[in-house]
Amino acid sequence: MKDRVYNFAAGPSCIPLEVLEKARDELVNFGESGMSVMEMTHRGKDFAVIFSRAKEQLRRALSVPESHEILFLQGGATLQFAAVPMNLLGTGTADYAVTGQFSGKAAKEAEKYGKVHLACDTSASGHDRIPAQGELRTSENAAYFYYCSNNTIYGTEWYYTPETDAVLVCDMSSDILSRPVDVSRYGLIYAGAQKNMSPAGLTVVVLDRELAGKALSCTPEVMRYDVLIENDSMLNTPPCWCIYMLSLELEWLEKQGGVSAMEKMRKERAALVYDVLDNSRFYIAHAQPDSRSFMNVTFRTPSEDLDRAFVAGAEKCGLVNLKGHRLTGGIRASLYNSMPMEGALRLAEYMKRFEEENRCMQ
Amino acid sequence: MKDRVYNFAAGPSCIPLEVLEKARDELVNFGESGMSVMEMTHRGKDFAVIFSRAKEQLRRALSVPESHEILFLQGGATLQFAAVPMNLLGTGTADYAVTGQFSGKAAKEAEKYGKVHLACDTSASGHDRIPAQGELRTSENAAYFYYCSNNTIYGTEWYYTPETDAVLVCDMSSDILSRPVDVSRYGLIYAGAQKNMSPAGLTVVVLDRELAGKALSCTPEVMRYDVLIENDSMLNTPPCWCIYMLSLELEWLEKQGGVSAMEKMRKERAALVYDVLDNSRFYIAHAQPDSRSFMNVTFRTPSEDLDRAFVAGAEKCGLVNLKGHRLTGGIRASLYNSMPMEGALRLAEYMKRFEEENRCMQ
Repeated sequence: MKDRVYNFAAGPSCIPLEVLEKARDELVNFGESGMSVMEMTHRGKDFAVIFSRAKEQLRRALSVPESHEILFLQGGATLQFAAVPMNLLGTGTADYAVTGQFSGKAAKEAEKYGKVHLACDTSASGHDRIPAQGELRTSENAAYFYYCSNNTIYGTEWYYTPETDAVLVCDMSSDILSRPVDVSRYGLIYAGAQKNMSPAGLTVVVLDRELAGKALSCTPEVMRYDVLIENDSMLNTPPCWCIYMLSLELEWLEKQGGVSAMEKMRKERAALVYDVLDNSRFYIAHAQPDSRSFMNVTFRTPSEDLDRAFVAGAEKCGLVNLKGHRLTGGIRASLYNSMPMEGALRLAEYMKRFEEENRCMQ
Repeated sequence: MKDRVYNFAAGPSCIPLEVLEKARDELVNFGESGMSVMEMTHRGKDFAVIFSRAKEQLRRALSVPESHEILFLQGGATLQFAAVPMNLLGTGTADYAVTGQFSGKAAKEAEKYGKVHLACDTSASGHDRIPAQGELRTSENAAYFYYCSNNTIYGTEWYYTPETDAVLVCDMSSDILSRPVDVSRYGLIYAGAQKNMSPAGLTVVVLDRELAGKALSCTPEVMRYDVLIENDSMLNTPPCWCIYMLSLELEWLEKQGGVSAMEKMRKERAALVYDVLDNSRFYIAHAQPDSRSFMNVTFRTPSEDLDRAFVAGAEKCGLVNLKGHRLTGGIRASLYNSMPMEGALRLAEYMKRFEEENRCMQ
C-alpha cells in the first residue's frame, strides 16, 4: 500500500489522520450500540447522542448565540444558492457581492426568485482582490447582503465583515472554523462541509431564527428554514455519517485549541507558501497581497508546461492535487485546518527546489 | 464491546458485515490513492473510478436500459417530492396513488406546482392494502402517474406495476433492489439509499433522458434533471462516501446472485415472520394478506403494554429497533436485503416464545 500523501485538494480535502483512525476503529460497531453509525436509525437514542453532540460542539466552536439555530442539511452550497432567496428575498431586492465563481452563481440563481443588485463585481480583474468597504454599492432597504468569505478558485478572502444595514448572509464553505467570526452580526451563514469540516454530503446552516417563516410559496418543504428548524433538521433522514464525522473533526479541533488556534495555524501555514512566492522571481501569485486567502494559495509558473511539470513532480513527492481550477489554470494549494504544518513545509521546500531547477531554463 | 445486534430499523438500517469490514479496512488509505475515500476530490481520477463503478454496478443490478440515466443526488426522497413535479408536471395534471404516508406527502408537495388528481387513497382503512388495477381512477392525459412501491410505515407493497398511458413515476425507496423490475416501463424511479442500498445521504434517480428539459422556471439549478444529466451528477460535489458505500453494497449483492437472489431471499425471510402471524391467535397483522410487504412486516399484540414488553424483551435478545412507527404504533420488523436469514429466524422464534409466555395472561 502506498504511504498516505499530503492532499492539497480544494474540497473534498484532507481529514486529520487521528479522526480517520477513530472512525475506522468504531466503524463496524459503535460504542455499546452493537452496530455501525451508518446503520443507526436517525430517530434512535444512539444517533440522538451523536447528533446533539455535533450541534453543541459546533455551537461552542463558532460561539453561535442562542438567537441562532444550527441546521444539518443536504444539497451543498448549490442548493443554498436557491434556498437563501426562496426563504429571505420576498418581494425585495438583495445585494450580492460577486468576488468569485460561487458568489456569481449564487447571484444568478437568486435572479430566478426576485431582484438582485450587484454590490460589486471583481470579474474584470480575474477576481484577484476583495473590494474595500467603501467600494461596495449597497441598495436601499435590501432584504439581505450576500457574500462568499473565501474564494476557493481564485484564492482571495474577505478580511473584514461588510458593514451594511441589511441582513448579512455569508457562504463560508471554504474558511469556516479557520478563524473567529462574530456570528451575531450575521443573519445566515452556511457552508458545504467538505472543505473545512467533514466529508462531502453535509451542509451546515446557522441562522437567526427570526428570519425563518417567510418562504416563497414555490419553496420545496425540505428547503424551508422554518420547517427545518421546527423539525430540528429531521424533516427527513439527515446525512448521519457526515454528522458523525463532523463531530469527530470538532473533537479534534477542540483538542487543538479551537478556532483561535486554527487561526494561528492557518497564518503560519499560509506564510510558508506565500513567503516562497514573495521571494521568487519565478512564481506569479494570482491574488493581490491585501486579499490573499489563508486557505487557498493560487499561483503559476512562467509557463503552462512548467505548471504541469510542477504538479507532476509534486505528486512524485507525495504532494497531491495541486492543479489549479480549470477556470484559472496554474497551481492551487489548499491549506485547510486539517493540513499538517509538515505538509505546508514540504510544499514550500518543493517550490524552492523546483524554482532552482527550472529558473535557468527560462 | 457489545456484540453486533440484528437491526430491524426501517431506515437507516442494517448493512452486511462484510461490507462494513471492507469499508473499515480501506478507510484510512484506499488502494493506491494514499488517502481516505472521504478525502478524495470528486473530480480526481481515484474517485472517478469509484463513481463509474457504482453507476455500472447499479445499471447491471437493475438492468437499466440505455435510454435511462442514473443520477446520484442528495436531499432524500423528500426533495424528490418537489423535484418530480417541478421537472415533469408542466401545466398538466398528475395522478397520485396515495397508499401511505410518503405518497401522501408527495401528492401534497406536488400541489404547490400544479394540478394533482388522486388515483386512489387508502387512508380510510389505515393504508392496510394496495388497490387492484381496476380500482385506480386515472385522469385523461396525465403528465405522469405516481406511486410508492412499498409503504415502510404500513407494511404494504405493490405486487404489480400499474397500467397507465401516463409516464410512470415510482418512489422505490424501501424495496429497490429486492426484486426484478422492468425499468423500461418507468419514466422515473427514485430511492433514498438508506433503506436498501447505502447509508443515509444519497438519493438515486433513474430516469428516461427524454423526460428532462421541461423544468418550471422556479426550479433550483441543482434540482433540474437536464442540468444534472449534463453534469453527470456533478453540478456540485456529490455525497462521495455514500456512493462508495453503494458500490461496496452492490458488489456484495452481485456476489449473492443479484436481484433475483434477493427476491428469493426476501420471500424466505418474510415467510418466517408471516408464518408466525398466520398461525397465531395473539398477534394482529396490519396489512391485508394480498398486500403484505416483503420488506416491512407490521403487527401488534393484544395491548400497547404488551407491544412495549415485546420490543423491550427483543432488545435484550439482540433484536433491536422493532418499535412501530409513531403513526401506527405496534411493532415493525424491517427485513431488507442486508438482514441475514438468521435474524429473521431469531425474530420468528422470539415471537413464538413471547406469544407462549403472554397468551395466557390475556
